[in-house]
Amino acid sequence: DEESLDSDIDRVKIGIDGLDEMILGGIPKRSLMVAIGSAGTGKTTFGLQFLDEALRDDGRAVFITLEQSREAVLSTAEEKGWPFRRYVEEDRLAVVELDPVEMANSLASIRNDLPELIEEFGADRLVLDSVSLLEMMYDHPSKRRSEVFDFARSLKEVGVTTMLTSEAREDSPYTSKHGIVEYLTDAVFVLQYVRPSNFRETRLAIEIQKIRDANHSRETKPYEITQSGISVYRQANIF
Amino acid sequence: DEESLDSDIDRVKIGIDGLDEMILGGIPKRSLMVAIGSAGTGKTTFGLQFLDEALRDDGRAVFITLEQSREAVLSTAEEKGWPFRRYVEEDRLAVVELDPVEMANSLASIRNDLPELIEEFGADRLVLDSVSLLEMMYDHPSKRRSEVFDFARSLKEVGVTTMLTSEAREDSPYTSKHGIVEYLTDAVFVLQYVRPSNFRETRLAIEIQKIRDANHSRETKPYEITQSGISVYRQANIF
Amino acid sequence: DEESLDSDIDRVKIGIDGLDEMILGGIPKRSLMVAIGSAGTGKTTFGLQFLDEALRDDGRAVFITLEQSREAVLSTAEEKGWPFRRYVEEDRLAVVELDPVEMANSLASIRNDLPELIEEFGADRLVLDSVSLLEMMYDHPSKRRSEVFDFARSLKEVGVTTMLTSEAREDSPYTSKHGIVEYLTDAVFVLQYVRPSNFRETRLAIEIQKIRDANHSRETKPYEITQSGISVYRQANIF
Amino acid sequence: DEESLDSDIDRVKIGIDGLDEMILGGIPKRSLMVAIGSAGTGKTTFGLQFLDEALRDDGRAVFITLEQSREAVLSTAEEKGWPFRRYVEEDRLAVVELDPVEMANSLASIRNDLPELIEEFGADRLVLDSVSLLEMMYDHPSKRRSEVFDFARSLKEVGVTTMLTSEAREDSPYTSKHGIVEYLTDAVFVLQYVRPSNFRETRLAIEIQKIRDANHSRETKPYEITQSGISVYRQANIF
Amino acid sequence: DEESLDSDIDRVKIGIDGLDEMILGGIPKRSLMVAIGSAGTGKTTFGLQFLDEALRDDGRAVFITLEQSREAVLSTAEEKGWPFRRYVEEDRLAVVELDPVEMANSLASIRNDLPELIEEFGADRLVLDSVSLLEMMYDHPSKRRSEVFDFARSLKEVGVTTMLTSEAREDSPYTSKHGIVEYLTDAVFVLQYVRPSNFRETRLAIEIQKIRDANHSRETKPYEITQSGISVYRQANIF
Amino acid sequence: DEESLDSDIDRVKIGIDGLDEMILGGIPKRSLMVAIGSAGTGKTTFGLQFLDEALRDDGRAVFITLEQSREAVLSTAEEKGWPFRRYVEEDRLAVVELDPVEMANSLASIRNDLPELIEEFGADRLVLDSVSLLEMMYDHPSKRRSEVFDFARSLKEVGVTTMLTSEAREDSPYTSKHGIVEYLTDAVFVLQYVRPSNFRETRLAIEIQKIRDANHSRETKPYEITQSGISVYRQANIF
Ligand SMILES: Nc1ncnc2c1ncn2[C@@H]1O[C@H](COP(=O)(O)OP(=O)(O)O)[C@@H](O)[C@H]1O
Ligand SMILES: Nc1ncnc2c1ncn2[C@@H]1O[C@H](COP(=O)(O)OP(=O)(O)O)[C@@H](O)[C@H]1O
Ligand SMILES: Nc1ncnc2c1ncn2[C@@H]1O[C@H](COP(=O)(O)OP(=O)(O)O)[C@@H](O)[C@H]1O
Ligand SMILES: Nc1ncnc2c1ncn2[C@@H]1O[C@H](COP(=O)(O)OP(=O)(O)O)[C@@H](O)[C@H]1O
Ligand SMILES: Nc1ncnc2c1ncn2[C@@H]1O[C@H](COP(=O)(O)OP(=O)(O)O)[C@@H](O)[C@H]1O
Ligand SMILES: Nc1ncnc2c1ncn2[C@@H]1O[C@H](COP(=O)(O)OP(=O)(O)O)[C@@H](O)[C@H]1O
Ligand SMILES: [Mg+2]
Ligand SMILES: [Mg+2]
Ligand SMILES: [Mg+2]
Ligand SMILES: [Mg+2]
Ligand SMILES: [Mg+2]
Ligand SMILES: [Mg+2]
Repeated sequence: DEESLDSDIDRVKIGIDGLDEMILGGIPKRSLMVAIGSAGTGKTTFGLQFLDEALRDDGRAVFITLEQSREAVLSTAEEKGWPFRRYVEEDRLAVVELDPVEMANSLASIRNDLPELIEEFGADRLVLDSVSLLEMMYDHPSKRRSEVFDFARSLKEVGVTTMLTSEAREDSPYTSKHGIVEYLTDAVFVLQYVRPSNFRETRLAIEIQKIRDANHSRETKPYEITQSGISVYRQANIF
Repeated sequence: DEESLDSDIDRVKIGIDGLDEMILGGIPKRSLMVAIGSAGTGKTTFGLQFLDEALRDDGRAVFITLEQSREAVLSTAEEKGWPFRRYVEEDRLAVVELDPVEMANSLASIRNDLPELIEEFGADRLVLDSVSLLEMMYDHPSKRRSEVFDFARSLKEVGVTTMLTSEAREDSPYTSKHGIVEYLTDAVFVLQYVRPSNFRETRLAIEIQKIRDANHSRETKPYEITQSGISVYRQANIF
Repeated sequence: DEESLDSDIDRVKIGIDGLDEMILGGIPKRSLMVAIGSAGTGKTTFGLQFLDEALRDDGRAVFITLEQSREAVLSTAEEKGWPFRRYVEEDRLAVVELDPVEMANSLASIRNDLPELIEEFGADRLVLDSVSLLEMMYDHPSKRRSEVFDFARSLKEVGVTTMLTSEAREDSPYTSKHGIVEYLTDAVFVLQYVRPSNFRETRLAIEIQKIRDANHSRETKPYEITQSGISVYRQANIF
Repeated sequence: DEESLDSDIDRVKIGIDGLDEMILGGIPKRSLMVAIGSAGTGKTTFGLQFLDEALRDDGRAVFITLEQSREAVLSTAEEKGWPFRRYVEEDRLAVVELDPVEMANSLASIRNDLPELIEEFGADRLVLDSVSLLEMMYDHPSKRRSEVFDFARSLKEVGVTTMLTSEAREDSPYTSKHGIVEYLTDAVFVLQYVRPSNFRETRLAIEIQKIRDANHSRETKPYEITQSGISVYRQANIF
Repeated sequence: DEESLDSDIDRVKIGIDGLDEMILGGIPKRSLMVAIGSAGTGKTTFGLQFLDEALRDDGRAVFITLEQSREAVLSTAEEKGWPFRRYVEEDRLAVVELDPVEMANSLASIRNDLPELIEEFGADRLVLDSVSLLEMMYDHPSKRRSEVFDFARSLKEVGVTTMLTSEAREDSPYTSKHGIVEYLTDAVFVLQYVRPSNFRETRLAIEIQKIRDANHSRETKPYEITQSGISVYRQANIF
Repeated sequence: DEESLDSDIDRVKIGIDGLDEMILGGIPKRSLMVAIGSAGTGKTTFGLQFLDEALRDDGRAVFITLEQSREAVLSTAEEKGWPFRRYVEEDRLAVVELDPVEMANSLASIRNDLPELIEEFGADRLVLDSVSLLEMMYDHPSKRRSEVFDFARSLKEVGVTTMLTSEAREDSPYTSKHGIVEYLTDAVFVLQYVRPSNFRETRLAIEIQKIRDANHSRETKPYEITQSGISVYRQANIF
């Protein structure tokens, strides 16, 4: 099992061609990660592909969506050729659709129940898409911060390898919308649009900003979203 | 019927020359979309043209305006050669003029009634022009967010293919005025002014920033608004 | 009569040389327009000249000033060679000096009375100089928005061809001070300073950002304010 | 008398070499003006010199300072060779030192009394140095705006030719600190630092942004502050 | 002992190759320092390495973490080859995991107890990772400032050589997230990403912005994080 | 005595080589000055050196520190070769350590007592290091402004030649952190970092932005902080 316990830090793959090669040695298991990007950069696809990596190896996974319907998530995955409906039938995948307003209001109880649920389900991987919608529901910054902080910590305690998705700030692709999650996560992936000054074709580019306890490339590499998901082009350059 | 139900994801056309060719395979039916642009970039025209695409094929449509009078909307459409008055007479088009203040105050009940109304009317397409005026009526960001979020979700549940229009942020053409709708929509079209540094002629340019589950061009292409609506020039470049 | 009712959309001239030629076919009558510019760009002059266009053709007009005294407005017009005192004597022009604080406090009643007053007076054109001073008097953005929105709508309902003047945002010549009126108006004129990087002579430049239902130039053209008002130089370029 | 009443608009000189030549025909008497600039650009000097122009012609003037002591103002003027102590002795000049906090608190009564006081004193010119310190004392923007607005109007009603000084916004030399006075004044002078990119010598530059009812140069010209006050170099360029 | 008391100011090393050579004469003992950088720039590694410098010389140290678990901190250190578990067993190192919310709520009592605890433990060095998470938990800026100020002062009074870590502001690598700690500290290290305009490889660069009472290089130098921690390349340049 | 009273305005030296030559004729005695700069630009050193100029000539001085301990201030001065401990013993220097929170809370009484204390002590010069820490303790801008304003005025009334130090705004080296003190002071010194675009060596540069009633260079000149304090290089250029 790729995620088996052995000496040293266990390491796993994200499941994205090109990107996994940029991470030397893999992501430490049980990491809490975040993929930051603005609308359409492929965060949801990133999260689904990250789960498929474990699911197609008989792993177990949970996808929590605050943005789309459960049905839409399943369609998107199927569209990419990832048999998420089958995984669900095999009881290895749970796709949970939560209302961000309700989630914000009952985060304390969710926080209490989630660990048990995840453990009972035996999930290897978890995706929350997106943490920005949750954060948006709080008015007071300090309330938002402490709630998100506590939530992140409870995820870490469960020990499930987790990918959060987060919108980027309008004025900086390297910062999450509310500037909190990059503090709390062990790994930060930055997905951004690169728009040439001549207004031609917009490109997609990814950078690994941080992985605690891992050596990784610091290059910014182009990627594409195709019918089979995200591919990072390690050999190519943006310009 | 272009929007008939068959296997896979049903796909429809926007109805704008040049732009539809930039979307490979069409927009998934029942998508919730947004056209973002500052004043005069053609958002209202975009919305009308989007409805005409269905209406001239015997479809049914609803146009909700928060900015103009019902009469002004009809005139504008007629002026572009789209027989909206006839569609109205044929009971295939409803043009609804809402007061944004009132709409904001009674959004909960609108949200409740809208699905039924749309279904009874049998609308294939819906336009809300503009969501920014609705958003502007809320003082508290979190209230605004949760109201708009719930409204967007109820639109998705109805399953009508919907185009919202939204003002852009002053400092970024790629972000909606209040930074919410691009989270909630399946597709984002960015309409922007490109002003050359020599202060000559301002150009109009469109980019498809996002379409969930669709392959699309990432080029920024010039477009014009003429007496017959919007035309995107796929072969041309901005500079 | 230049503003007579005939089939199609009636169209009128602004009354500014060079600018009217940039508007192909004229401004739809009964439009609500705004001229956006920072201090000294000539907004008040623009408004006066717009009224003179109708007044010298035996039309009737109302000028509401929140910034200057009635006397100062008349002097400025006379100074430009527009016989505003005579128009007043002929009862074809009303120059109304309002206190912005009071106007803000009693906007609801003004809104109620204005239509009747304008209709009784039979005004063809109306100028409000400036809407920014009115907007400034509200503390709460949503109150400001809904008040200005309702006011704009009541002006539209009256059907008088109206020019608002508005200060520009400090950081963007294309945006009104409070970012509301460009949503509500049918036409947006942008008056701006162009300062060369060598700190020589500051130029004045105008762009038509938007005219609903009209074809217009998208060029930015130099203009000057002289003893006879504003002239736009269609053949010249800024640089 | 340079400021005598004759037909047409009476016009006066500022009293600054070079600058007066940039104003074609002079400043309309009874104008309310503002000199905007950041710390050290010479606003106080500008105001003193503006008063001296009238005082040395047997005129009468009032200088209200919110920033310095009465004594400091007199010293500064004397230092520049303007015999302000003599003017005071001759009862033609009043230098009034006000506490901005107190002034803010009792602005309504000052507003009531000022006209009478100015008229009794028979002042031809008035300087308020600086309006920014007054504005700073209000917490609520709308309170600040309406107070400053009313104060400006009462000054206009008195009919005394007035120069306000105002700090500039940190991020724009063309905007006053609180963005109000340029709305209310008939003339705006912009004093700014021009710092070359090679970090050599900082220059002082002045631009006339606006004079209602006057033709004026739109050039930005260098100026210096010397022992005899401000001189604008009409023939020179910044770079 | 490298930290022994002798005449003049005692000086110590940070423990980072290349960086210590940039500090001429060493850091004054008992300094309160801060390492500012955004996520992934190596602040935590910096702090651990700073402690290891003392620990491997039989010193005593405390590491307070607000971001990670105690276990994660120990793993990270071990991963870098610093025997933190052994130090803990030898009772020379205390790794304390605090909840930022709780820490914020009980900062007064922590402040009271900390000095005694540190003195009893006999710590030579202390790291707080990160002060930004603590700061984030306060809503009111003045409360945040006075709490952090008092906390910093109590650390200074204890006299333990301390390294705080702090996130950088999104828009300036030279400023801490909340703009307070650089006021209160004796030394400021700036860790930043340098991203070339061609979107190739992101580099890490360090600058010593301030060390009270010490001569130091003002160069910005590249550094790397490897399996053995941080190395600064004094001989290399960023570009 | 360098600060003796004679006709005209008495003038004193700052005590910094190179800088004093940039001030033609010296600083008017009893001026209230401010040195603005970000962390590490040498503001504290500037203040100490300014006092030493008077102290080594048998003058008397007060140094109020809100940032460091009394002991740290004395060490720093001694380290630079300024015998501050001796001055203290000779009762010619008072180094006062104040808690900014307490100072903010009791500013009214401090304001009342300070004049008498300073006069009794017979101080020629006073430094407050830094006014930013005091300002930071107020939540409400208008409270902050009026308190700082009153404090500045009481300092002016005492007539002691005073240097405040102030942090710069993050986004502008020419503006103090809270944008108040440059309004209230007679002289403004700007200390800034100049970072070359190739990320090599950061330089220190000083500009005299303002000295009321004095002629001064407007050049920006490099300076260094060495073991003997600050030296400005009048002959050198930044680039
Ligand atoms: N089959 C496909 N072919 C090409 N591009 C696709 C395809 N499916 C999705 N995309 C791209 O992926 C984007 C959406 O990705 P998504 O993961 O939903 O982004 P995000 O969650 O960041 O908003 C779409 O905007 C589209 O550009
Ligand atoms: N017949 C026409 N010919 C050319 N341009 C037109 C015509 N009708 C409208 N336009 C252009 O369309 C713009 C308005 O489009 P609209 O859809 O109302 O924009 P928005 O809703 O984004 O404010 C006008 O400003 C004008 O430039
Ligand atoms: N007779 C004139 N000759 C030249 N320029 C003039 C004349 N009268 C006014 N102006 C210009 O017009 C400007 C004022 O125009 P105004 O319409 O009041 O601007 P705004 O209302 O935008 O502040 C003045 O600043 C001046 O530059
Ligand atoms: N063994 C390693 N090899 C190379 N780089 C590493 C290694 N361990 C950690 N890093 C780098 O260090 C970074 C994390 O450093 P850390 O001190 O946790 O940063 P911060 O506390 O500033 O977020 C990772 O993002 C990674 O780039
Ligand atoms: N002996 C010295 N040699 C060289 N530079 C020194 C010496 N002492 C202090 N400095 C410099 O002075 C800076 C601190 O000056 P300081 O006056 O405390 O700055 P500020 O008060 O603006 O934060 C240090 O960061 C260091 O760069
Ligand atoms: N005798 C003089 N010679 C040269 N420059 C002077 C003289 N007196 C004053 N200045 C300049 O004038 C500036 C102050 O002008 P002031 O009118 O007080 O500015 P402001 O009111 O805008 O702060 C000083 O900073 C100095 O540069
Ligand atoms: Mg998504
Ligand atoms: Mg529209
Ligand atoms: Mg005007
Ligand atoms: Mg002044
Ligand atoms: Mg860290
Ligand atoms: Mg200091």
